[in-house]
Amino acid sequence: LDYQHVQVPFEITLWIMLASLAKIGFHLYNKLPSVVPESCLLIFVGLIMGGIIYGLNDRSPPVMDSDIFFLYLLPPIVLDAGYFMPSRPFFENIGTILLYAVVGTIWNVFGIGFSLYGICQVKAFQLQDVSLLHNLLFGSLIAAVDPVAVLAVFEEIHVNEKLHILVFGESLLNDAVTVVLYKLFRSFCEMPTIKSVDVFAGVGKFFVVGLGGVLVGLSFGFTAAFTTRFTKDIRVIEPLFVFLYSYLSYLTAEMFHLSGIVAIISCAMGMKRYVEANISLKSHTTVKYFMKMWSSVSDTLIFIFLGVSTIGENHEWNWPYICFTVIFCLIWRALGVLVLTFFVNRFHVNTITSKDQFIIAYGGLRGAICFSLVFLLPDFHRKKLFIAATTVVILFTVFVQGMTIRPLVDLLAVKRKRESAPTVGEQIHIRFLDHLLAGIEDISGHWGQYYWKDKLEYFNSKYLQKILLREYDQPKSSIVLLYEKLERKHAIELAQAGQLGHGLAHPSFLCSAFLCSSSDRTVITDQKMEDTPNPDVLDNMQEILARNLYRIRRTGPAYNRHTLPGDSEPAEQAKEILILRHKSL
Amino acid sequence: LDYQHVQVPFEITLWIMLASLAKIGFHLYNKLPSVVPESCLLIFVGLIMGGIIYGLNDRSPPVMDSDIFFLYLLPPIVLDAGYFMPSRPFFENIGTILLYAVVGTIWNVFGIGFSLYGICQVKAFQLQDVSLLHNLLFGSLIAAVDPVAVLAVFEEIHVNEKLHILVFGESLLNDAVTVVLYKLFRSFCEMPTIKSVDVFAGVGKFFVVGLGGVLVGLSFGFTAAFTTRFTKDIRVIEPLFVFLYSYLSYLTAEMFHLSGIVAIISCAMGMKRYVEANISLKSHTTVKYFMKMWSSVSDTLIFIFLGVSTIGENHEWNWPYICFTVIFCLIWRALGVLVLTFFVNRFHVNTITSKDQFIIAYGGLRGAICFSLVFLLPDFHRKKLFIAATTVVILFTVFVQGMTIRPLVDLLAVKRKRESAPTVGEQIHIRFLDHLLAGIEDISGHWGQYYWKDKLEYFNSKYLQKILLREYDQPKSSIVLLYEKLERKHAIELAQAGQLGHGLAHPSFLCSAFLCSSSDRTVITDQKMEDTPNPDVLDNMQEILARNLYRIRRTGPAYNRHTLPGDSEPAEQAKEILILRHKSL
Repeated sequence: LDYQHVQVPFEITLWIMLASLAKIGFHLYNKLPSVVPESCLLIFVGLIMGGIIYGLNDRSPPVMDSDIFFLYLLPPIVLDAGYFMPSRPFFENIGTILLYAVVGTIWNVFGIGFSLYGICQVKAFQLQDVSLLHNLLFGSLIAAVDPVAVLAVFEEIHVNEKLHILVFGESLLNDAVTVVLYKLFRSFCEMPTIKSVDVFAGVGKFFVVGLGGVLVGLSFGFTAAFTTRFTKDIRVIEPLFVFLYSYLSYLTAEMFHLSGIVAIISCAMGMKRYVEANISLKSHTTVKYFMKMWSSVSDTLIFIFLGVSTIGENHEWNWPYICFTVIFCLIWRALGVLVLTFFVNRFHVNTITSKDQFIIAYGGLRGAICFSLVFLLPDFHRKKLFIAATTVVILFTVFVQGMTIRPLVDLLAVKRKRESAPTVGEQIHIRFLDHLLAGIEDISGHWGQYYWKDKLEYFNSKYLQKILLREYDQPKSSIVLLYEKLERKHAIELAQAGQLGHGLAHPSFLCSAFLCSSSDRTVITDQKMEDTPNPDVLDNMQEILARNLYRIRRTGPAYNRHTLPGDSEPAEQAKEILILRHKSL
Repeated sequence: LDYQHVQVPFEITLWIMLASLAKIGFHLYNKLPSVVPESCLLIFVGLIMGGIIYGLNDRSPPVMDSDIFFLYLLPPIVLDAGYFMPSRPFFENIGTILLYAVVGTIWNVFGIGFSLYGICQVKAFQLQDVSLLHNLLFGSLIAAVDPVAVLAVFEEIHVNEKLHILVFGESLLNDAVTVVLYKLFRSFCEMPTIKSVDVFAGVGKFFVVGLGGVLVGLSFGFTAAFTTRFTKDIRVIEPLFVFLYSYLSYLTAEMFHLSGIVAIISCAMGMKRYVEANISLKSHTTVKYFMKMWSSVSDTLIFIFLGVSTIGENHEWNWPYICFTVIFCLIWRALGVLVLTFFVNRFHVNTITSKDQFIIAYGGLRGAICFSLVFLLPDFHRKKLFIAATTVVILFTVFVQGMTIRPLVDLLAVKRKRESAPTVGEQIHIRFLDHLLAGIEDISGHWGQYYWKDKLEYFNSKYLQKILLREYDQPKSSIVLLYEKLERKHAIELAQAGQLGHGLAHPSFLCSAFLCSSSDRTVITDQKMEDTPNPDVLDNMQEILARNLYRIRRTGPAYNRHTLPGDSEPAEQAKEILILRHKSL
């Protein structure tokens, strides 16, 4: 027996296997997932395993290594989040998200830091030796909402899309703030004196870290898109480039102390549309599938490790400090959301209701990022206190808040996600309105969201697509792509139902041509009407569209880490389409 | 800049990126792949890179780590080889393959070892200090044909399927012999005296190492199949199990000093049909795609590293020894193939022609396995000589033999692979003949290949399928599965051509029912005719089959590491089907 030789890969494989089996076991009983979030159960599995290891070895089980977390477990989850990010709601709310992520996080850091420093002054608690700087450092690591924990809970409760993107977007983008503040306070702790120059340099770093991350991400994203132009003869390695370039963007950003999370999200969002146009259908399936699989496993491992690492003798149980940490985390987040939303609502027509505000505040879960950061702290005599407080905050938010948020959403009757995704008809209208508003903004000279979106789209089709796409002469509108996808799906369903025939040629080519031209804004604003077909043909096409774009032809649901779009689609739909079609004949 | 922190993943990603880009560059010019095998070019890229590193650092570039090779680079390639192994030709020729792999390899080891010992006795060569045992040890590592190198060359020259499986199967299964002999001689080298008991124990180990590998592989394979029974609600992690269990089988076998290659091949071949029946279509695509991708990258990395590691100061250039090694490798392989084939041909009707024998002997390429084994040798004063000889043998076989084998195959007019894969009609006839022969063997009491295959099939459908398949009540024949796949593909092609209609309901359900019952041998041998439909319906079905199972409805080509089945399918086929169908109406 030669265990030493294979130990490293063997143990990694076994851990992944354990995580996968835990996931299967969790889904075997259908009632369980509807009551308890998966994250809670996984932490529970971890706690049990940690207990067993502790009992058998009589020493603390191994703690999740921060390097492993940041270098190997976090990137797949963030890549998945960025790649499947619904870009429309994200960019529509980008201002609000940034406000929550930057100002909100700073507010929380200083709020929690200063109030805990106040608690430390109470003599009865024996905490006088914890300095203000250490409290602020602790605040910087405990204040940030965790994307992994937020995702795990929010994708199960199905709140409306805006609410979801506000919490989720904040949890992703606050990484830049956390990185800056955490490193700033840590270096301050080691410095003998702090000059005001250092403080100003810290403020400047926000922009460097955030925008640098975006730049690194976008450049890797565009390189990835450019590379996939040349993979036509060697399709099998296409998916690889998506993963390699995203991961390189993350590592490069981390190397330069920029925000890796921001970088990988920019990379994924930047490359997505070009890569998907270049690679084959099967490569695309593989990319999507593998991303989901990887992030799902990473996420499972993180929660299990979180449970395992909790057991042991790393903690100093000073209960006043710990309890006040939990209370301050709740209070400052609630206050921050209230104040910031007040300003946001003054400038928006579509306001954030008080119910939504409550869920945003209540959904501020903490997770593995805090946990890894607290272990990365330099050794000092109160590190174990911070570890204990972080553990309790994470367990409190994940267990108490995570398990009660679903009943609360039900109780408050928070606006839910639309059960049905928008139909193709609705999508065409939304697109039309976008073009219209861009035209109005252009004429009125107001450079708003639609104006910039339109300019970006123009830049994209004029320059970027020519460089990044293999077949740039045929830019396809997303609606045409969706239509093709639905046709393909329909065909597969027909084949599976054994109903494939060959009557009536379906004029999808004509439809595509119509959609292509109608989705091109120049038709509307620049009056280039000579490109569009004559009214008779148009009427005919609209009739065809109305008959064929049946309501069940929908796009997939929004972001979900556990399923791929179309996975949960009931088989009923195929039959329904068939019946409808037969009737129309 | 904090490079230390991200160094390991960053450099791994960069190496993989380099390998992928080299692959793209190689395929950009269509003329290159038709003249030079990819493996040669990759070694060449490696040589250049090694030269650059050597020139810049003024010291030997890093050598491919044997642990990395055996633990991380080799398993994906072997898994891919096992998973896509054409099982019919493999099992039809298993006797011949085993003879070449076991007896042939032993023959080569002792032949090369003893003749090199003879050379060492020549005083002029100054090699008297190389003992017989060291020569045998060297023989054991240089004798084995390398699966990675064989695959890289043979899949480009498209020889007939039997010839391909003979060389390829030998290269895979000789691993058990190599493991045993290499470890035996290495332990002998370190022992003061060798008892005859040790020699006999070595002979016994052959069976333990080989059969143990098969057992480990099959048990992991069946566990994997069993696990995928329960993944219905969590489709995204299905592909993971295929990789995890295969890898665990390899690591477990290595841990117990069994043959990891044999284990992972048994695992992949054992699990394949059950896993594919259990997992979803998209999971299946992901598994296939990722396997190809992974093995393709591993293989590229191996050849590049091989090139890089060649540069440096690890070599002792004793040219007589090196030249005689190359000569003996060629001579003993040629002799071995001649002698063994003589015996094989006496017992087979379908003999191996002398042209085939020449290609088998000439296709005995050496590769990265020898290279890794020679670096794993314990340090002794002539290790550098062995390294030099191994490097030269590998470069000679890969470059000289690898580049000339294609012209030789053309020159000798070796029987090529059928351009067209068997049609569905042919497949049905082959299946029918199998059943017939099994029945004849059963009646005549001759327990041959068909008898055992049939018994295995019976055991499979009676017990294994019930345990391992989720929906075991509907065992589908491979022809029905193929038919469904073709229907699906056809539907997608129709949808893409915009020709999807909805006339004429296609009776594929009936066809499936017909094929199901006709492929069940009990119908033929046990005369359970009451299960089959009446003759009128049968006639009708046959007519439908004849019209629909058009000749271009083929299965994919045999094993190829770079493409997935159907990748290279010309788009013409969709049109052809359409035209045919329209005519038939």
